[in-house]
Amino acid sequence: MDSRIDLQNILHKDIPITRRIGIQVEHCEVDRVVLTAPIEPNLNHKCTAFGGSLYSVAVLTGWSFIHYNLQLHGLTGTIVIQHSETDYIIPVDGQIRAECVMQQTENLYRFIKMYKRKGRARMSLQIKIMHNDSDAMILNAQYVVHTHL
Amino acid sequence: MDSRIDLQNILHKDIPITRRIGIQVEHCEVDRVVLTAPIEPNLNHKCTAFGGSLYSVAVLTGWSFIHYNLQLHGLTGTIVIQHSETDYIIPVDGQIRAECVMQQTENLYRFIKMYKRKGRARMSLQIKIMHNDSDAMILNAQYVVHTHL
Repeated sequence: MDSRIDLQNILHKDIPITRRIGIQVEHCEVDRVVLTAPIEPNLNHKCTAFGGSLYSVAVLTGWSFIHYNLQLHGLTGTIVIQHSETDYIIPVDGQIRAECVMQQTENLYRFIKMYKRKGRARMSLQIKIMHNDSDAMILNAQYVVHTHL
Repeated sequence: MDSRIDLQNILHKDIPITRRIGIQVEHCEVDRVVLTAPIEPNLNHKCTAFGGSLYSVAVLTGWSFIHYNLQLHGLTGTIVIQHSETDYIIPVDGQIRAECVMQQTENLYRFIKMYKRKGRARMSLQIKIMHNDSDAMILNAQYVVHTHL
């Protein structure tokens, strides 16, 4: 199955809120995952995207990046977020679009190697929400992956 | 009107996602606001609360704390989150319950005074999600309030 559709089905099945906020997978590649959500179900009092929705889309983009890379190595695991730092820069008054790009692939190889050896590994990712060609939100998130109990 | 019901109506009207994730206002006092949400609409793949939902409930608790305190001083304003740091400590497998308690009331007075004078002020708050008498998530968030444009 197309990896994009496969990932979207997993998100919609496993995390019901992703259907409610309208999450779609736009890209799913080894070094780049992009998730989107429409503005309508995620509006706040100022008719821009609610900060909690921006955060949720961004966190799920990082989660999806790790899930897909584990899958490419024939691995599974429980992926949880452990720590995050979030900067809101400009409001988003249209589609929410979050992108996770891995520039240093050695970090990814180190992570996979550690997970294979220990059954537990940490991964730090930066996820950006862009709006009108500017950074709108930046999430720096640390995830932990461990083998299913 | 009861301040708790008033706040809940504002949240449900202005930020539609609060209805979808089942936000309720449990307490609304000058120095303490507690919001809750049921686990069911917020489940993740491990049958615990999705990290983005925990974050959303916590962010809205801080938002509500500021909104209510502005109201007590006869003020209104646009409240937005600017920066946050989040630590996930233990998973939540029951009701989500987020609490914002202001221990240093002088910070609150300083914030109100600054907002009255400048029409813009910053407020840092800590919001905790507790589960089984332990800290489950801690959010340190910086909000900015400015007069409606």
